[in-house]
Amino acid sequence: MDAAEAETELKKGFETLEVVQKDRSVPVYHIYLNRPAQRNALTLPFFSELPRALAALDRLPSARALVISGHGPHFCAGIDLSSLASITAAPSSDDPAAVRELLRRRILALQDAISAVERCRKPVVAEIHGACVGGGVDLAAACDIRCCSEDAFFSVKEVDLALAADLGTLQRLPAIVGYGNAADLALTGRRVSASEAKAMGLVSRVFPSRQALEEGVAALAGGLAEKSSLAVMGTKAVLLRSRDLTMDQGLDYVATWNAAMLMSRDLEEAVSARLQKRKPVFSKL
Amino acid sequence: MDAAEAETELKKGFETLEVVQKDRSVPVYHIYLNRPAQRNALTLPFFSELPRALAALDRLPSARALVISGHGPHFCAGIDLSSLASITAAPSSDDPAAVRELLRRRILALQDAISAVERCRKPVVAEIHGACVGGGVDLAAACDIRCCSEDAFFSVKEVDLALAADLGTLQRLPAIVGYGNAADLALTGRRVSASEAKAMGLVSRVFPSRQALEEGVAALAGGLAEKSSLAVMGTKAVLLRSRDLTMDQGLDYVATWNAAMLMSRDLEEAVSARLQKRKPVFSKL
Amino acid sequence: MDAAEAETELKKGFETLEVVQKDRSVPVYHIYLNRPAQRNALTLPFFSELPRALAALDRLPSARALVISGHGPHFCAGIDLSSLASITAAPSSDDPAAVRELLRRRILALQDAISAVERCRKPVVAEIHGACVGGGVDLAAACDIRCCSEDAFFSVKEVDLALAADLGTLQRLPAIVGYGNAADLALTGRRVSASEAKAMGLVSRVFPSRQALEEGVAALAGGLAEKSSLAVMGTKAVLLRSRDLTMDQGLDYVATWNAAMLMSRDLEEAVSARLQKRKPVFSKL
Amino acid sequence: MDAAEAETELKKGFETLEVVQKDRSVPVYHIYLNRPAQRNALTLPFFSELPRALAALDRLPSARALVISGHGPHFCAGIDLSSLASITAAPSSDDPAAVRELLRRRILALQDAISAVERCRKPVVAEIHGACVGGGVDLAAACDIRCCSEDAFFSVKEVDLALAADLGTLQRLPAIVGYGNAADLALTGRRVSASEAKAMGLVSRVFPSRQALEEGVAALAGGLAEKSSLAVMGTKAVLLRSRDLTMDQGLDYVATWNAAMLMSRDLEEAVSARLQKRKPVFSKL
Amino acid sequence: MDAAEAETELKKGFETLEVVQKDRSVPVYHIYLNRPAQRNALTLPFFSELPRALAALDRLPSARALVISGHGPHFCAGIDLSSLASITAAPSSDDPAAVRELLRRRILALQDAISAVERCRKPVVAEIHGACVGGGVDLAAACDIRCCSEDAFFSVKEVDLALAADLGTLQRLPAIVGYGNAADLALTGRRVSASEAKAMGLVSRVFPSRQALEEGVAALAGGLAEKSSLAVMGTKAVLLRSRDLTMDQGLDYVATWNAAMLMSRDLEEAVSARLQKRKPVFSKL
Amino acid sequence: MDAAEAETELKKGFETLEVVQKDRSVPVYHIYLNRPAQRNALTLPFFSELPRALAALDRLPSARALVISGHGPHFCAGIDLSSLASITAAPSSDDPAAVRELLRRRILALQDAISAVERCRKPVVAEIHGACVGGGVDLAAACDIRCCSEDAFFSVKEVDLALAADLGTLQRLPAIVGYGNAADLALTGRRVSASEAKAMGLVSRVFPSRQALEEGVAALAGGLAEKSSLAVMGTKAVLLRSRDLTMDQGLDYVATWNAAMLMSRDLEEAVSARLQKRKPVFSKL
Repeated sequence: MDAAEAETELKKGFETLEVVQKDRSVPVYHIYLNRPAQRNALTLPFFSELPRALAALDRLPSARALVISGHGPHFCAGIDLSSLASITAAPSSDDPAAVRELLRRRILALQDAISAVERCRKPVVAEIHGACVGGGVDLAAACDIRCCSEDAFFSVKEVDLALAADLGTLQRLPAIVGYGNAADLALTGRRVSASEAKAMGLVSRVFPSRQALEEGVAALAGGLAEKSSLAVMGTKAVLLRSRDLTMDQGLDYVATWNAAMLMSRDLEEAVSARLQKRKPVFSKL
Repeated sequence: MDAAEAETELKKGFETLEVVQKDRSVPVYHIYLNRPAQRNALTLPFFSELPRALAALDRLPSARALVISGHGPHFCAGIDLSSLASITAAPSSDDPAAVRELLRRRILALQDAISAVERCRKPVVAEIHGACVGGGVDLAAACDIRCCSEDAFFSVKEVDLALAADLGTLQRLPAIVGYGNAADLALTGRRVSASEAKAMGLVSRVFPSRQALEEGVAALAGGLAEKSSLAVMGTKAVLLRSRDLTMDQGLDYVATWNAAMLMSRDLEEAVSARLQKRKPVFSKL
Repeated sequence: MDAAEAETELKKGFETLEVVQKDRSVPVYHIYLNRPAQRNALTLPFFSELPRALAALDRLPSARALVISGHGPHFCAGIDLSSLASITAAPSSDDPAAVRELLRRRILALQDAISAVERCRKPVVAEIHGACVGGGVDLAAACDIRCCSEDAFFSVKEVDLALAADLGTLQRLPAIVGYGNAADLALTGRRVSASEAKAMGLVSRVFPSRQALEEGVAALAGGLAEKSSLAVMGTKAVLLRSRDLTMDQGLDYVATWNAAMLMSRDLEEAVSARLQKRKPVFSKL
Repeated sequence: MDAAEAETELKKGFETLEVVQKDRSVPVYHIYLNRPAQRNALTLPFFSELPRALAALDRLPSARALVISGHGPHFCAGIDLSSLASITAAPSSDDPAAVRELLRRRILALQDAISAVERCRKPVVAEIHGACVGGGVDLAAACDIRCCSEDAFFSVKEVDLALAADLGTLQRLPAIVGYGNAADLALTGRRVSASEAKAMGLVSRVFPSRQALEEGVAALAGGLAEKSSLAVMGTKAVLLRSRDLTMDQGLDYVATWNAAMLMSRDLEEAVSARLQKRKPVFSKL
Repeated sequence: MDAAEAETELKKGFETLEVVQKDRSVPVYHIYLNRPAQRNALTLPFFSELPRALAALDRLPSARALVISGHGPHFCAGIDLSSLASITAAPSSDDPAAVRELLRRRILALQDAISAVERCRKPVVAEIHGACVGGGVDLAAACDIRCCSEDAFFSVKEVDLALAADLGTLQRLPAIVGYGNAADLALTGRRVSASEAKAMGLVSRVFPSRQALEEGVAALAGGLAEKSSLAVMGTKAVLLRSRDLTMDQGLDYVATWNAAMLMSRDLEEAVSARLQKRKPVFSKL
Repeated sequence: MDAAEAETELKKGFETLEVVQKDRSVPVYHIYLNRPAQRNALTLPFFSELPRALAALDRLPSARALVISGHGPHFCAGIDLSSLASITAAPSSDDPAAVRELLRRRILALQDAISAVERCRKPVVAEIHGACVGGGVDLAAACDIRCCSEDAFFSVKEVDLALAADLGTLQRLPAIVGYGNAADLALTGRRVSASEAKAMGLVSRVFPSRQALEEGVAALAGGLAEKSSLAVMGTKAVLLRSRDLTMDQGLDYVATWNAAMLMSRDLEEAVSARLQKRKPVFSKL
């Protein structure tokens, strides 16, 4: 996909999302969960639209930082119950084992939609207000940076639906909040306030109001967008890969990465800007 | 072992533990360290009794959540010095290498007793008051959720016995409190207060008094016991397995797990209870 | 290298470091970054001197705990810009791929200098005041325990030099402060105060002033130096190794370690001192 | 994609492949590399067509086993040189680091096309005659079973193009032929005959002529197609996953897999057929 | 368990096994699968008796090497069909997900019985004649050394029972015969002769007749029993552990192991015997 | 170390090795084990000289392929018994645990000398005749390619010295000859002939006489030396790293490696030479 195809893809629009660049002079795009009347509960179309939107934004030069947030009073109420029903509905095959084999593939497909946030090379900020529950936590946990307003609350609610959370929370949360906090949240499904979320590292910043949140995230994303895209993408990629490598393997990986990516125009620009005590201007990618 | 055998096993009783269901209508069992005069210091019988108790409770339908706590003024003062002496005592063999081979197996056996907390499919809450020191930290770190009263204090005391902690603390603590805090605690053996323990994630909840702790943990465990056992067990199992898997492997694992376990009566009950806005009633396992 | 060779090595002195035992009766050595006029920016000589100093101290019986700190108003301002230029300078070879192969090896060599802190068997405390930026964070993250004064601040600044941090921060930070905080710091390069650093686990202790920091770290390092060296070294080694092992492998590793190292004079001394309620005196290693 | 969509997809046809079911009564599909005049050298269209073909066949009930082979006198002569040139051609961006970032993604995309053979749930047999060189070895190594005729020869030729093989051979070959043989082949690029390939495990069967090869593979694939699809797919999936897991993790994985997939109609049919000493008839998936 | 308890345990006898020391002067024990009329098909009692036998032999000083073989014309015909039926039989619980959770635990228990061969510290030789099919391959693959007579044949037969082999073959075979051969055998279930088994490394020695096999294995096991038990056990343990470790981790592990186990009387005896050109006599363990 | 320093280093000469370039026009160096009267038994000086020689050759442009072989009638008889004695000799410290801690470090240092063969970026061929026993197998297993003459024989002899092999054989052999063969060899210490070694992949080529071996290896090494050094080094590096990575990680690693190293003059030369049907001439590194 090239830039023009990416623009075309985005212009098609989405049923469950709104994708918008608020200010043409700022290379930041917002992805809004856009089913406010249903508290942005996640439906099957969402799981095909999110990776489609992210793949297009990944290829769009005017998008250098992304924000995911929700329209209406809540970030996300988790998976939509009727979608859950259709996921677990038996298909035509009448071998029960075949039904379960299909269920496994359906879950893998849903996971893949959430992991698209990590596959996207560009930094993704979760901007959270109101409820962030169930699948909403899965989505937020896959983002690179999480911010919230003081009214936000979090709940790994899947256990109360009588299931083990299977969209990534059980894999990503322990590294974010520590294993003990993750087990507490996932086993009890209890509600966590914004300030407790901050204390345990679930969000890295709390803002006093929704407006302050929007302004704060806009500033944060705008700042990311001004940095060298190569450096930001490299940092994201190396952090994600190192998560699964031993210390030695991670060090070797970043050395090999930088063998390819370090000697860039951006580096020259950064160094000369620093020596000239001016702001650097980095190339678009 | 079936349910009847489990009951029989528990009725035999224990030398170092008391296992009790406080309220026949609430499917929660308490395991008390029961050597209060010795501040519940861990002796060799403890290391064979704990896995025996947990194996029985794992098979008992009336046990859907477990609590480990200590009788007397302290949770646990760590390993008993005379037990330590007998562990390191040379056996009859007079080849010094054979002595060390035996020592290695003895340590593996002690570790295995602590890991029985993780092998138990049911959620285990550590209820901590007073001293939680040395082997007490190893035990607490293997529990799923840790709560304490304000008088509790923690110390990875092994370094002051001139040994490297070998019952799991050095493996489990870094994921719970972060690598930096874990190294600080393990190298210095310093005493950590309840509030610092909360701040670093060593406990997830602090209660103002021992009575409040008991009530709070009873409520917490009671809540766990009301949830779908399949969902709680699945969450525990997936969290533990994912700890050692890459992100991709962890996601695949939970998808495969849920291919088997998701389509349950409990899920149907949870969904229909939610639609009917009533409290679900889950099946016993 | 034996003790005498280690002494000789240290007596040669260093261009970028000062290595000093402040009190002959206390087996603690301080390694000072010693380019205060340049805010201790890291130059190429530093990367060969630090492993040399640590290798010597590792073999010196009078060094049982180490402290790394900085002369002048700052801990470390990160990599020196002209050193960075010489690292990325093309060598004589005119095949551009050969240039990049060489760059990869240069980065591996710099990483190796930082990892020397972990290779050193003895505990290393980072004593941080003022700026701890870029390469300074890489260095601090490799230390076992991090303390700072209230004036300290931290910044993973590499992203603003248009590069992905490649000296270990992206590998070590997530385990120390959680993945979410690490991603926030590394992607934004934002400045973190001492108190925020404490809250996220980046330092384990904050002192109100630089003098209090020096006294506090002296007490901390002195305490480490009084413990059994075998136990302290074993704890450090097992923690570091377990970081990359599964739970089962880590437990097996420490059991095997203690099969070799547990039955020591230090253990006998610790137990008998405890029974006699006196302070133990451990052997030098 | 459902079965009808898969049929449609296959009917569109391919530029570099021919996909054909030779006998409507036998649920086996053949994928032919179809550029015989160029010895089936791999071009860019191939790398998008192969995963497209495999995705469709994965969803087609009438395809229960797949065969990959080549039209003309050779299996595959490796990557097409002009395609290689276009992969390494600099794009419009003029930052050399951005060029390398793009090159990395292009390589990942090519790898992904080869890995599509593993992602396909159905068994894939490589039927090899004549040259199997460079990219041809990458492709063959990703297949589940490799057979060849006596005229076949193999060469990990990339080293003679002055590059490290990057489409999977260096990752897959060591597990197939042993690390020592893999290093020999990959470092020297030497030609391996059919009989040496058999001796080192690179192929599991050698046939005396091309016709015997075709008949032998047809019988082999036909046999696979008669087995329980659930069992064959499960075996392939578990083998692939276990490759990257520890022994304990692999055992747990297959237990969890079979918790979902074992209790099937196919199992009932297999058992009752065995008791009745008749041939089982398995359900289509 | 001590030596006396081990003797008592063995004296109780077994329903599916015969355990016998053929010659009181040779510290070798034979474990015979002992249901010759059923071609030693594996029943549920076998899966509890095998680990019981191995645990006892592990603790018996007079057992320094073990041999597993089968009475009657075959080594083992795989799992018994009626046992398979009882494993998959639904228990009383009527939640289908609970049934599958129980099935998963049953499979884990069966696996654990096979893995007991690896848990046993002493070397175990598989002596194979006639059929080695299905579960027989799982059992053989867990042994340390595999020998067979020329009439032996092997088949990973599970796929023809419509299931993915779940007792370890899919995890252990690839490391033994290479990934390609393992996939071929597991997907096709085809019969492998003794000589092909030797060529692919499935057995390390083939004997021309059953009598030659018995004599050859007796000599082999007798030879193992004469070696230093510490060295043989250490070699087995380190090989098994290293299987799941990176190269660096494996090297560190064996160094730590030998830190504990190398300086033994056996080493002194081996060295002095060599210098004196006599046969060493090693201590019993 | 630059080229001039490498030359100087090599000119100093060695006590246990001879390092020689046989033909100034051929960039191949031979490292001879040079204690023929003692069948090249490995002494302590060897373990410091081998890494010194390899580090120098790694930096020498005139060395593009290396051969390790032995002077006299044997390749290597394993570790020298008096060196083994001095390794296990107790140092001055009288704490037995400290003695074992030192022993562990000594073993790690010996391992590190063998691993220097892998650390060397250039391909290393083992040319084996006569005995290749004990430590000789450790050394050979670390080489990239192993060739032998028909008189060669192999024995993992450590078990007969009453110790578990700790210089890498237990880690490297299973990947080379399969786990089953490796366990057989390591547990029994039995002698393996050249032809059996070839059949199990321990060597990749057998030559009928010592002279044929020397000529064959000279041709092989000469061929390696004519190839693109970047490509050969990259292949070696990627093979070694991939050994410890999952499939996905290995593919990502080689893609990142080639992002840096693929676009080289050597590639241009290789492609244009192929189009012009002439022999390429690659740049020196």
